[in-house]
Amino acid sequence: MKYKKTIMFVDKHMNDLLKDLQTLIKQPSISAKNEGIEECAVLVAKMLNKAGVSSEILRLNKTAAPLVFGEIKSKSNPAKTLLFYNHYDVQPIEPLGEWNDPPFSGKIIGNKIFGRGASDDKGELITRIKAVESYLKEYNDVPCNIKFCIEGEEENGSENINEYLKKFKKKLSCDGVIWEFGYVDTKNRPIIGLGMKGLLYVELSVKESIRDAHSSFAAIIKNPAWRLIDALKTFRNSDGEILIDGWHDDILPLSKNDLKIIRKEPFDLSDFKKEYGIKELVGDKNAFEAKKALVAGPTCNIAGIESGYTGDGAKTVLPSTAKVKIDFRLVPNMDPKKQVKLLKLHLKRNGFSDISINVLNAESAARTSINEEIVDVVCNSAKQIFGDYILNISNAGTGPMHAFVHVLRAPCISIGSSYIFCRMHSPNEFAKIDLLNKTTKCLCLLIENFSRSNHKN
Amino acid sequence: MKYKKTIMFVDKHMNDLLKDLQTLIKQPSISAKNEGIEECAVLVAKMLNKAGVSSEILRLNKTAAPLVFGEIKSKSNPAKTLLFYNHYDVQPIEPLGEWNDPPFSGKIIGNKIFGRGASDDKGELITRIKAVESYLKEYNDVPCNIKFCIEGEEENGSENINEYLKKFKKKLSCDGVIWEFGYVDTKNRPIIGLGMKGLLYVELSVKESIRDAHSSFAAIIKNPAWRLIDALKTFRNSDGEILIDGWHDDILPLSKNDLKIIRKEPFDLSDFKKEYGIKELVGDKNAFEAKKALVAGPTCNIAGIESGYTGDGAKTVLPSTAKVKIDFRLVPNMDPKKQVKLLKLHLKRNGFSDISINVLNAESAARTSINEEIVDVVCNSAKQIFGDYILNISNAGTGPMHAFVHVLRAPCISIGSSYIFCRMHSPNEFAKIDLLNKTTKCLCLLIENFSRSNHKN
Repeated sequence: MKYKKTIMFVDKHMNDLLKDLQTLIKQPSISAKNEGIEECAVLVAKMLNKAGVSSEILRLNKTAAPLVFGEIKSKSNPAKTLLFYNHYDVQPIEPLGEWNDPPFSGKIIGNKIFGRGASDDKGELITRIKAVESYLKEYNDVPCNIKFCIEGEEENGSENINEYLKKFKKKLSCDGVIWEFGYVDTKNRPIIGLGMKGLLYVELSVKESIRDAHSSFAAIIKNPAWRLIDALKTFRNSDGEILIDGWHDDILPLSKNDLKIIRKEPFDLSDFKKEYGIKELVGDKNAFEAKKALVAGPTCNIAGIESGYTGDGAKTVLPSTAKVKIDFRLVPNMDPKKQVKLLKLHLKRNGFSDISINVLNAESAARTSINEEIVDVVCNSAKQIFGDYILNISNAGTGPMHAFVHVLRAPCISIGSSYIFCRMHSPNEFAKIDLLNKTTKCLCLLIENFSRSNHKN
Repeated sequence: MKYKKTIMFVDKHMNDLLKDLQTLIKQPSISAKNEGIEECAVLVAKMLNKAGVSSEILRLNKTAAPLVFGEIKSKSNPAKTLLFYNHYDVQPIEPLGEWNDPPFSGKIIGNKIFGRGASDDKGELITRIKAVESYLKEYNDVPCNIKFCIEGEEENGSENINEYLKKFKKKLSCDGVIWEFGYVDTKNRPIIGLGMKGLLYVELSVKESIRDAHSSFAAIIKNPAWRLIDALKTFRNSDGEILIDGWHDDILPLSKNDLKIIRKEPFDLSDFKKEYGIKELVGDKNAFEAKKALVAGPTCNIAGIESGYTGDGAKTVLPSTAKVKIDFRLVPNMDPKKQVKLLKLHLKRNGFSDISINVLNAESAARTSINEEIVDVVCNSAKQIFGDYILNISNAGTGPMHAFVHVLRAPCISIGSSYIFCRMHSPNEFAKIDLLNKTTKCLCLLIENFSRSNHKN
């Protein structure tokens, strides 16, 4: 089987790819709100079948979102298995007013296809399905066994993926995992990623009284928003450095090789600033410091804060409750459970035991060694199709890579089609059509290269 | 004319009073959202006419809410004029989920009538209309001239009342003003108020980037919520004391007589704590300190704060903007314009010039001297009807009393029917029916006593 024939197939069937992607986008699947999850799982399973991949909807229990499993065995090389990890759920669509078109439109304008999930992760999923389909249609076979593991809770912290992997360990066993996403930079270079940060997502809430009061009582009734601010101001300094006692204790220093790879990674600071309309970075970082922070810096981000009246005009109210959503990004060797304990201890020590903590997500960080053979397979494939690539030892974002590495014991590597400024998680998310095309072709080659590699798990 | 006959009229027509109050409640009139304002003004004018008071809808310009003017001249004593100041607008109804019945239901359960405006201020307005109506129906005359000044922007800062008073100064001229509200404590004692605090209501906003970003970028993109918190934490200490430089400079100390009146005022700290479900007051104040703070303490209250994702579940977003609504209560001699300047200077000095300030409300405080004869008139009337009363040199809340005192040059005094824990500005606002009845009677007596008093403006 030659990937060149499949590449021609991809070009010839780009319209089908876009139509299928539109179908996926048009099906809402917001895991945070449990909206359209079941429907989307069924849709994805049917799409796998249509491509020639047999599918199955796996279930863990009554509450966990279903996981779509796909499998096609290779007649020519049944000894090696490549697994594609993707997710069919998407982020919430707020703030609604900032979308130019409805969030689930799938509208195509020029080289872009718009909609929640266009890149993250329905765009990535479709390139993988189409790469496998191209082999099946051209050869009625695949160069190696292919498996799909498509979960429905990634945007809500993948809280059940670990249990899914454990329960269906045999079914999902493989020799390598292609991670759910991959960025392409402004110069069309795919960013090949070897790791993911961890995430601790908590909601803190304060209740100062049993009901809202007239704000004239502010002279004597405590305000929960002030209480929250008094606590939050002990969490970090204005340079973004986390001040929670012991927070950084378990972090391992970057190796010389790590720093070398980071230094080599291109990063256009002025392009980045322009894209987000910002003048300076947190702590006034330079380009190298910025890259280092993205790869290996723990963060403490306010994802949302709310108290009292937030509508138009003035309401003189003293709210009874206040809440804040904070996401901490973690780096390898930080245990989310231990970090929660440190946070609780910090609140207690600073006199904020009245503030309650609800842990919404907790995932460890993970990194795949640069010495794994799959790294060469992916890098070489990318170089051949895109002409160049960028190696990144860890993405700044989070995914359940830790679970795959530790349960399946397979190396994970990320490569994909998402333009770096594709507005992922934000209004007007899009995918670039030329990148969907190129990435599908790259995956065709990658499958062939992987089937030939010496690596065996 | 004898008030005793009018009191019998009030008892006989309580059902009409309640029906009219329900009609008023059912007409939404949220000034902050300009919802139902025109409709409610027309309704109130018609209700005055129905009571026998000739009414007129006054207008200042195209944007100001109309002011309903009512007047009935006394045939027997045309030399004295009492003016009732009220407002037909109400506070917003959020948070909607906490209402047991729809906010504009006017539902009666036992001794309570529920709905936004039931107490503040439609309940107060109806007692005044009915007191005047009782004289007109029984005697076809009133003991002195009566005027009504019913504005539609009180809950939004009364931003045009000063101009209205100036433009219609002659029409509104009077010898005394009965203020728009008045509380009744848990022991059925009306609280007679001589003053109001001022208010400075501002919205601060920060924009750190041109769009929301994936929160993994928190390692390098600044977070506007953190920026706002960094600024807010310089505004006050955890005891609620304002730290803005020069904030307290113009405040006059309380006189010995003021302190005596404050000390005399009853305040059941444990009742208060129970009502709001709180353990301790701001700064752990005792009862006397609490009363002093309510009467004469400036405040800095967060009425609302919002940034990022505040829905259910987790969204890993780095918001681009954050905003906070703050209401500062001011005491006599503080000039809101000067306080805004101090706030701006404070932000600048602390390096927060990027935070923008939008002033939504600015009103000065005012106090009527205890030596005005109208104080005796009101106190004596209250004592006769309620058996007892409480004198309060300043309410903790705000109203445009400063404008009435300075433009109309008439003493203002507050007495009314609102139960002290009537959930004003909050979900499930109510009025007590027995207090509506008693207050209407008290107003009947008050009109007679006022007409006989020697006071002449």
